[in-house]
Amino acid sequence: MDDNRVYILGGYQTDFARNWHKENKHISALMREAYYGSIEAVNIDPSDIKAAFVGNFASELYCMQGHLGAFFVDLDSCFTGLPTCRFEAACASSAVAILSAMAHINAGIYDLICLIGVEQMKTVDSAKGGSFLGAAAWYENEADGIEFPFPKLFGKLGDEYDKRYGLDDAYLAKIADINYTNARNNPNAQTRNWFMNYEHANTVGKYNAPIYGKIKVTDCSQITDGAVCLYLASKDFTEKYARQRHFDLNNIPYILGWGHTTAPIEFAKKIADSAKNEYVLPVTRQAILDAYKRSNIKDCWDLDVIETHDCFTTSEYMAIDHFGLTKPGESWKAIDEGVIQMEGKLPINPSGGLIGCGHPVGATGARQILDAYKQITGTAGDYQVNGTKRVATLNIGGTATTNVCFIVEKCPLHH
Amino acid sequence: MDDNRVYILGGYQTDFARNWHKENKHISALMREAYYGSIEAVNIDPSDIKAAFVGNFASELYCMQGHLGAFFVDLDSCFTGLPTCRFEAACASSAVAILSAMAHINAGIYDLICLIGVEQMKTVDSAKGGSFLGAAAWYENEADGIEFPFPKLFGKLGDEYDKRYGLDDAYLAKIADINYTNARNNPNAQTRNWFMNYEHANTVGKYNAPIYGKIKVTDCSQITDGAVCLYLASKDFTEKYARQRHFDLNNIPYILGWGHTTAPIEFAKKIADSAKNEYVLPVTRQAILDAYKRSNIKDCWDLDVIETHDCFTTSEYMAIDHFGLTKPGESWKAIDEGVIQMEGKLPINPSGGLIGCGHPVGATGARQILDAYKQITGTAGDYQVNGTKRVATLNIGGTATTNVCFIVEKCPLHH
Repeated sequence: MDDNRVYILGGYQTDFARNWHKENKHISALMREAYYGSIEAVNIDPSDIKAAFVGNFASELYCMQGHLGAFFVDLDSCFTGLPTCRFEAACASSAVAILSAMAHINAGIYDLICLIGVEQMKTVDSAKGGSFLGAAAWYENEADGIEFPFPKLFGKLGDEYDKRYGLDDAYLAKIADINYTNARNNPNAQTRNWFMNYEHANTVGKYNAPIYGKIKVTDCSQITDGAVCLYLASKDFTEKYARQRHFDLNNIPYILGWGHTTAPIEFAKKIADSAKNEYVLPVTRQAILDAYKRSNIKDCWDLDVIETHDCFTTSEYMAIDHFGLTKPGESWKAIDEGVIQMEGKLPINPSGGLIGCGHPVGATGARQILDAYKQITGTAGDYQVNGTKRVATLNIGGTATTNVCFIVEKCPLHH
Repeated sequence: MDDNRVYILGGYQTDFARNWHKENKHISALMREAYYGSIEAVNIDPSDIKAAFVGNFASELYCMQGHLGAFFVDLDSCFTGLPTCRFEAACASSAVAILSAMAHINAGIYDLICLIGVEQMKTVDSAKGGSFLGAAAWYENEADGIEFPFPKLFGKLGDEYDKRYGLDDAYLAKIADINYTNARNNPNAQTRNWFMNYEHANTVGKYNAPIYGKIKVTDCSQITDGAVCLYLASKDFTEKYARQRHFDLNNIPYILGWGHTTAPIEFAKKIADSAKNEYVLPVTRQAILDAYKRSNIKDCWDLDVIETHDCFTTSEYMAIDHFGLTKPGESWKAIDEGVIQMEGKLPINPSGGLIGCGHPVGATGARQILDAYKQITGTAGDYQVNGTKRVATLNIGGTATTNVCFIVEKCPLHH
């Protein structure tokens, strides 16, 4: 069982505040910086890499470029002849790349995989970019001709919570505030220097325009250019890697368990299906439960930190009860009691999440895993949650259509 | 070793002559027909399916739709909650999906995977479609502002053969003729009723316009709408499946070996790199050699049939010597001697290949594997090569940037 562990050797995140189009740089430049940054950060010998995977949502639309796996060879000639592949599941693209990397490692096919999650989104204006994001939903049915389809779809998630359980907008404002606050401590966060506070997030008007339902500008994640490069390895490789560098194997995090589920792509169908379920998005809940089960952990209180997919404040509100911090529909209690804040019982998104750190769509799942690595190895700097030994991530694609939950820890774990 | 075999239980191919946009149908309709056709053809109990993978190149561009994995749930509610993912490596997209399916099966994660390769390309005119294909190359450097970039790039492959070894255009015309001839016997081939013969293919002019270098219209594969659904399974699952249906396990094909390599994405770089190599595309050659090695076979004469990636006649010309039918640069000899024809020593593309059967980009790798299955199980109908026990496939993405070779056989094999 232990021999089947997939280890995370570390990685590198680009500064999510940058605009690479304005710098006149191609999407492969994002990959290049993440790759060379990671080689240095992780102290990898490139000749040890056996395969290279890339998670990306829609570079065909944003950059008129497909076949991103092939760009590894352009980054470094050591990739010539190696296997490469691009993986896509909308905003969960790098999470599904990680799952396939794990499968290849577990099958004994490759022992060290270089994995980049990347998205360059600032190549187009926000209306066009919003329309491109519609390709993550059922475009013809849910996005065609609709301005900013995703804020509207996640606005409906807020409406559904309100209808079933009641939802005061002030709690969503608090979620935005916490993510922006955390992001201030993250040197790679897009919004680290932005003005934001709870009062501002809780105001609707000229400086915080309403979009749909409960979603205002401050309830949205960012349009972000970014790349994250990770190294995933077998136990055998990791032992050798640690020995050669005089690292303690017990300080290298590994993926303990995971869940991966798919819900109907249309949001209205999801909600119709869950009408009689106590969870608004039971297929998302299932991915979390599957991860708990495969990790042999009881519930969320066996976790120290969660990095979740707050593409909107409503999706984080959903994550709170779906992870089991509260009973279904009572996420507001965890917010009220300060549970999810940095100093709380179970901090969510110390990185700032998608709202604060930024959301380069195809990179987000990899960024979450890199942040899990940082928290567990005590290298998260000013956004470190002290004593973190186990982290959960939740990466969702579309309107919680693809759902991937990972549990990351280090050994030995004495909880 | 044998227990690690990944079996092919069969599948279904849509009629590649259809135009689904003219039928006013969404890309998910292609997936739907392939899926339900395959359920009947393969006699699968949908509740046995553990995961669903899709290979697709650029539905974002052709159909303004990403996140194709999620559409499985729309096809059949049995997919609700299952893991799904989309895989992309340009024209080798479904080959890389198959490789990840094999990894998941070999790792013991899933024992039965439903895999669809799909592309809907007739949504746009040919100039726009040609431009979209440019996203499989380095778009900015090789395709931007260039009309029909791919025929030009593969024209350069012909030029390179001519320069190094001499290449008479008549051999390319013969390759086109053989593919069109074979396609006439394939009830799903796009060109099965088209007028074509060697004289026509060997003429340049009003009815066979030159495009670039040695590439005329008849040297090109087709713009095609198509989907192929396959089932890949573990040995344990296949034994149970065969027993329940009173099938002989020894008649069910499996993947014996594979190779997967990546070359520099830019064609000029590939050619510069190979200047001193006897093979024009040594990284493609390596994928084939890796497949031979993993299959423990000596050379191409241990094969009965090859299904190769003839996106242009020049890429089939390249495949002939790269598979080892002739010495490097002497592919014309195999054509001259009739080796690659239906009745030859090693027939290539009994299906008609990409030129005759059609080339729905993201479906081609899966179509090749389905044709390997048909040949080996003796169910290829009028394009059956009698006595076929072992088939090689070669699926390439971009200008032979991603290269995937599979060897498929059935057991016991007495050659």
